[in-house]
Amino acid sequence: MSQHVVVSPHEDEPPGLHRVANAPPRRSWRTWLIGRPLATADAPHQTIGKTVGLAVFASDALSSTAYATQEILLILAGAGVAALVYGFPISIAIVVLMAIVTISYQQTIHAYPDGGGAYIVARDNLGELPAQIAGAALLTDYILTVAVSISSGVAQLVSAYPSLQIWRVEVAVILVLFVMVINLRGVKESGIAFAIPSYFFIAMMYLTVGIGFVRLLVGELGTVVDPPPLEIEEVASVSLFLLLHAFSSGTAALTGIEAISNGVTAFREPRSRNAAITLVWMALILATLFLGISYLAGEIRALPSEEETVISQVARTALGGRNLLYLAVIGATALILVMAANTAFAGFPRLGALQAADGFLPRQLTYQGSRLVYSRGIISLAVFACILIIIFRASVSGLIPLYAIGVFLSFTLSQAGMARRWWKIGHMAPGAVVQERGSVLAYESGWHTKMAINAFGAVCTAIVMLIFAVTKFTGGAWIVLILLPVLVFIFEMIHRHYRRLAQQLTLRDYRAPTRIRRHRVIMPISGVHQGTLAALRYARSLSDDVTAVHISIDPEREMALRRRWATWGDGTRLVILDSPYRLMLEPLLEYIEEIAASQEANEVLTIVVPRFVPRGWWQNALHAQTAVWLRFALMFRPGIVITDVPYLVHETEMEER
Amino acid sequence: MSQHVVVSPHEDEPPGLHRVANAPPRRSWRTWLIGRPLATADAPHQTIGKTVGLAVFASDALSSTAYATQEILLILAGAGVAALVYGFPISIAIVVLMAIVTISYQQTIHAYPDGGGAYIVARDNLGELPAQIAGAALLTDYILTVAVSISSGVAQLVSAYPSLQIWRVEVAVILVLFVMVINLRGVKESGIAFAIPSYFFIAMMYLTVGIGFVRLLVGELGTVVDPPPLEIEEVASVSLFLLLHAFSSGTAALTGIEAISNGVTAFREPRSRNAAITLVWMALILATLFLGISYLAGEIRALPSEEETVISQVARTALGGRNLLYLAVIGATALILVMAANTAFAGFPRLGALQAADGFLPRQLTYQGSRLVYSRGIISLAVFACILIIIFRASVSGLIPLYAIGVFLSFTLSQAGMARRWWKIGHMAPGAVVQERGSVLAYESGWHTKMAINAFGAVCTAIVMLIFAVTKFTGGAWIVLILLPVLVFIFEMIHRHYRRLAQQLTLRDYRAPTRIRRHRVIMPISGVHQGTLAALRYARSLSDDVTAVHISIDPEREMALRRRWATWGDGTRLVILDSPYRLMLEPLLEYIEEIAASQEANEVLTIVVPRFVPRGWWQNALHAQTAVWLRFALMFRPGIVITDVPYLVHETEMEER
Repeated sequence: MSQHVVVSPHEDEPPGLHRVANAPPRRSWRTWLIGRPLATADAPHQTIGKTVGLAVFASDALSSTAYATQEILLILAGAGVAALVYGFPISIAIVVLMAIVTISYQQTIHAYPDGGGAYIVARDNLGELPAQIAGAALLTDYILTVAVSISSGVAQLVSAYPSLQIWRVEVAVILVLFVMVINLRGVKESGIAFAIPSYFFIAMMYLTVGIGFVRLLVGELGTVVDPPPLEIEEVASVSLFLLLHAFSSGTAALTGIEAISNGVTAFREPRSRNAAITLVWMALILATLFLGISYLAGEIRALPSEEETVISQVARTALGGRNLLYLAVIGATALILVMAANTAFAGFPRLGALQAADGFLPRQLTYQGSRLVYSRGIISLAVFACILIIIFRASVSGLIPLYAIGVFLSFTLSQAGMARRWWKIGHMAPGAVVQERGSVLAYESGWHTKMAINAFGAVCTAIVMLIFAVTKFTGGAWIVLILLPVLVFIFEMIHRHYRRLAQQLTLRDYRAPTRIRRHRVIMPISGVHQGTLAALRYARSLSDDVTAVHISIDPEREMALRRRWATWGDGTRLVILDSPYRLMLEPLLEYIEEIAASQEANEVLTIVVPRFVPRGWWQNALHAQTAVWLRFALMFRPGIVITDVPYLVHETEMEER
Repeated sequence: MSQHVVVSPHEDEPPGLHRVANAPPRRSWRTWLIGRPLATADAPHQTIGKTVGLAVFASDALSSTAYATQEILLILAGAGVAALVYGFPISIAIVVLMAIVTISYQQTIHAYPDGGGAYIVARDNLGELPAQIAGAALLTDYILTVAVSISSGVAQLVSAYPSLQIWRVEVAVILVLFVMVINLRGVKESGIAFAIPSYFFIAMMYLTVGIGFVRLLVGELGTVVDPPPLEIEEVASVSLFLLLHAFSSGTAALTGIEAISNGVTAFREPRSRNAAITLVWMALILATLFLGISYLAGEIRALPSEEETVISQVARTALGGRNLLYLAVIGATALILVMAANTAFAGFPRLGALQAADGFLPRQLTYQGSRLVYSRGIISLAVFACILIIIFRASVSGLIPLYAIGVFLSFTLSQAGMARRWWKIGHMAPGAVVQERGSVLAYESGWHTKMAINAFGAVCTAIVMLIFAVTKFTGGAWIVLILLPVLVFIFEMIHRHYRRLAQQLTLRDYRAPTRIRRHRVIMPISGVHQGTLAALRYARSLSDDVTAVHISIDPEREMALRRRWATWGDGTRLVILDSPYRLMLEPLLEYIEEIAASQEANEVLTIVVPRFVPRGWWQNALHAQTAVWLRFALMFRPGIVITDVPYLVHETEMEER
């Protein structure tokens, strides 16, 4: 059955070393689901151009046009239909903010050619705590991106096929799992796969908006429902709070704009320049589509509802009914939303691995699965997203208050980090060069302006974040405001754990321990049979100091056991623990503890447990798993070695297989 | 910290033997929930008289009056309100059946003074298979008793407090768990606790029925709704099938009548006589109440509904409205129903332990918990019952089709067994005495009649069972008809497993194996640190033939490891397993398998795994649990010893605690 190939040892290898290579693992249901394993060597290295780059990174940002307008109107509608006229002005304000953020990120992209995500920028320029805050904010938001995008995607489908209404949660969950599997397979060959739907969406949207405006000009664009449900009253008095509230809901449109700055490395050289240009293009498309939709929504008197999305209302009215074109628009929108979720599946695991490598998340997250992807991160993301979707019944409006606050927190931190970075640069000696983890610092003239720009960006996003936290606090933002510190705390705990463990295990000035002087063996037995004797035989091969221990619950049983032990026990010491309360584990543990307590440094205590080898799962249920429980109980007990010796009945087992 | 008391060794103990007694275990949440542990010596021995006996054993049987009538009417109502007039005649038929069963069980009680449950009677007289069938039938029915009784109890409460309607499932589940805890505590002191509510129920019922009849005679007993919802049409044609269907629904009234025959031992001497008398009394009360309620239900034109139980309708009409008396009746009914569930909690674990002792169920079921009760059986029962309640949304009518079929199957088997027994007795030589497991056989004159009685009982119950199966098949009986054989099959599998294992482990003509000639040790390592070295130290104490194995995923990591190993490895052989697919476990397993394959009988292979000792649960999540996975993977692999050596960092751990 050998699958091993002994390969030629590397030149520098000592004679004592043996090297063995493995054949690829057998296929299994996993192979079927996520594809054949990829060798580490297969890691993809190809880079992408601007056109594909736009497609790959824009889906998250662009897809937000599918719900941003609706969420603005939803809040305004709270103050009566009249208030909806504020929808467009608010959209303009959001686009201004968009411009500011874009400009700031331009600088980040150039400063961090190897990818300048908020986490890295904060870590390099602001230190550990801000970095962890950024990390927490981003992780939370990746989860919300998936939940919101998928939910919105389902909402689009429901608009087209109202009969889906009752199944929205199920559909959403299935979609998440679908995207998860895609990502477990690895999206190496994604370039073209992304380009088509992204550009299809962009095209359909411009078409819709275009047709809409033309028909508006020729004055034949009607309203969603003709005649509009209620005559437009003169504008009711609308509170500033309401406007800010609507505004902060709309800021969801900005989410995903940072994607490009994380993925600079994916671009073809000159990557910074290409990435920067792509960012500008993305921002332009995003801004125009968002404004167009918002304006038309106002014109056609779109009313936000759970049954039909605003996008659907706009498309239906602009394209004159639920025709094929309309279905294409809805399809494209749903598709882009699913892809937006997909980008989060790229970002979350990468960031997780980054934080894990820094020791703030479980190390396992740095482990790449058989398909060269961070499987654990991908799965965790899917699980969390599904939980959110189920809790919020796949309602976008329900999720929005939690969303975007994390995005803006990370915006603020990364811009602040950039500002700090310019300040450092400004105070460097001309010609000096400092290599940081993520980027290279060298004096630049005109650092003042650059610092100013980033600082301004930081301030703006900070203000938006505050507005957001205040206006949406009761709506659900409080959850995030509690969650973030908790996460940061957990990160710190994990970090502390790894640090301390490293100290404890270090071999720096570690003197090898003296050889083991005394080796005690304790062997719990419930009966005397071949299994017990096999264990005994093994125990005695470990040491001469073996003690068999029997927990006595039933006197007759005990007597029988002692009689048989006298015959078969080979003279080994037998201790009977009376258990008047019929407890199995506790007396044994007490006994072990007591012996362990009297141990010295160069003594070892081994517990030998006869283990039954089941032929099938269910058979485990037929045996008191003392070994399992014992290990469980001693898990936190250092200095005790647990050994389980299988019943040597395998010959019989074999022939019976 | 020693809690041990070395007690004087028993006279017959060999010098080599040490005996240690345990102090009672510390208190914990378990102590708080189910009370302090009871020493085996505390096992209760007190017996009870007829009065208390009736209270203890009758609740199950009597409680069925709370739903039997309703279920009859429910079926009849299917053929129009007119059909309801058949309710009373059917009730009479059921009472006749009741009489037959009672008489048959009279004989069982006398024949089995140590308790003659269907399982024992079938086992002693019909053999293994019938016994297991009876066991399966009874276990299923105990579960259904809990589900039905609790659901009906909740239905009563809902009748009184309709606002509870939406919470019925939750309330039912909570009640089940409540009864479970009570039973985990042990119902040693139950006698009086049972007497009060049982007699209270009996009193309230007779009062209701009494008042009902009085008001009926003086002609002032109205109908549930005045005037009755629809004029009584002349009787519509009613199919025989419908009548039989209704009849079989009503037979639920007989459930629990066998309780006394199981518990003869609980009675004061002459126990058989006392038990027999109690049985008669129980049957009389049951019959009269059942008839009374059925008759009144007809008079007041009670209509079965999920909102209000028939009992509630009868009580409300008889007692003139939802007054205090009415509430008392409902309360008493709900209470007796909960107690009926409680009797199942006594029966299920006892039967389970019986079958486990015979080797047809997992041995653990014979283990008495710290409170001298079969905890595992009790918990399993609660779990299964809760599942049923949740699936059937706590609807009695939904559960009824599954119910009682098992009861009648066990009736049939036990009566058939009795008949068989009489036949055996009839063919014994006068004066001869045969000791069977459950009873003593000695020739009796008049065995013919006794045999005839039991045979007749068997036939009747068999017929009812058939009627039941046919009429309720589609309604849900099919589930039970599939379940029972499956259960029996499982029992046999378990039995087979234990038998074969015993053969494999027997020491009969077993020659002690030769001493271990070769001991190989394999030690997987991921890094070189104090933990690894501790494990290495231990491994070398086992054998000189130690091989360290490293799964190489990351070349740099591997290089570093090999460098450190050269320094610290103490010259131990190091094997590098290249894992181009980044799989951790598979390559290791293959390697182990290969070595294991080349083993001879007197060779041993030990896997030494360095185990990290976490300070808290959550820290486990921070470490790839190779040891755990490895053990998992090798669980079915006999002949390999797995040892985990804890990182010796506990000094530090200690001082930090």
